[in-house]
Amino acid sequence: MAEKLDLPVHRARAFLEPGPILLVTSCHDGERNVMTMGWHMVLEFTPSLVGCMISAGNYSFELIRRSRECVLNLPTLDMLDTVVAIGNNSGRDRDKFADFGLDTKAADKVGSPLLTACYANFECRLADDRMVEDYNLFLFEIVKAYVAPRPKHPRTLHYTGDGVFVVAGETVSRRSDFRPALLGNGR
Amino acid sequence: MAEKLDLPVHRARAFLEPGPILLVTSCHDGERNVMTMGWHMVLEFTPSLVGCMISAGNYSFELIRRSRECVLNLPTLDMLDTVVAIGNNSGRDRDKFADFGLDTKAADKVGSPLLTACYANFECRLADDRMVEDYNLFLFEIVKAYVAPRPKHPRTLHYTGDGVFVVAGETVSRRSDFRPALLGNGR
Repeated sequence: MAEKLDLPVHRARAFLEPGPILLVTSCHDGERNVMTMGWHMVLEFTPSLVGCMISAGNYSFELIRRSRECVLNLPTLDMLDTVVAIGNNSGRDRDKFADFGLDTKAADKVGSPLLTACYANFECRLADDRMVEDYNLFLFEIVKAYVAPRPKHPRTLHYTGDGVFVVAGETVSRRSDFRPALLGNGR
Repeated sequence: MAEKLDLPVHRARAFLEPGPILLVTSCHDGERNVMTMGWHMVLEFTPSLVGCMISAGNYSFELIRRSRECVLNLPTLDMLDTVVAIGNNSGRDRDKFADFGLDTKAADKVGSPLLTACYANFECRLADDRMVEDYNLFLFEIVKAYVAPRPKHPRTLHYTGDGVFVVAGETVSRRSDFRPALLGNGR
């Protein structure tokens, strides 16, 4: 993969709003993990806020709750088997980075590792924890973002349940039909 | 379109987790509206919870905040021009149902109308409003759901910003690689 470019954090929506499966990396007190996540949403451009539901049953939950940070990594179709392996194994039982051959790189602003094979990486700090206890809902601020220079629109994976993913396909533009005030903030 | 089927509400994730653009209908005190929404997430199977960011600047915001309900309608690629028209016009200025020829049907459990041309409809009641003031984030419970019998996986629209949508494409199954406990809750 070509070297990633810095992405202004308010443009993270271009890759998160479509709703792809993400790989969440975390690290706390010498322990690290990676998990799959499909329940997330964009909440604001500036600050760049994203809501993430991370079930308390996951090994990653305490790592993230205690470290108050994580990295959201965006995988594509070529990583499907890795995504499924990560989602079907627990960090309680094994080192998923070693067992699944995941190359990592140090992040700039957080302690969790970046997954180099992913199309994009979003370094996150916990911005609001008031919904964690009732809903396992973390509100993160994206503090640094990286994206591959191409393709412009990646073939991301979108989970429908029951082991089935739908893949991001063709793109269609209706830019000329938009009010100018609603444009911008894309890739 | 063939008549829709009732969908068990815990299976709404099959259609919402992939992250499609939704059309949100609302009604309060004789006023009704429809808006586009791309910032939403699944939060729980049972009760069937979904988080929705509805900006306070939208005409729909007060209708939904006061009525404490809405319907999430799932459009597909054939409705692209209607989706763009709805997203680029305000209910303050016009009756979007009349102007864009939107057929509606009464909902079962809420006062907001169902959009009949959409692939699926999810009737929602406000379950938690504590994040509305700070983040415009509504937590809804889906109380009734309907879905078209086919196709099994609809060609939904996923917004990337700047007037560009990515369309849900091929599906890939890795069901045989999943732990049985993680299966189910799909279409």
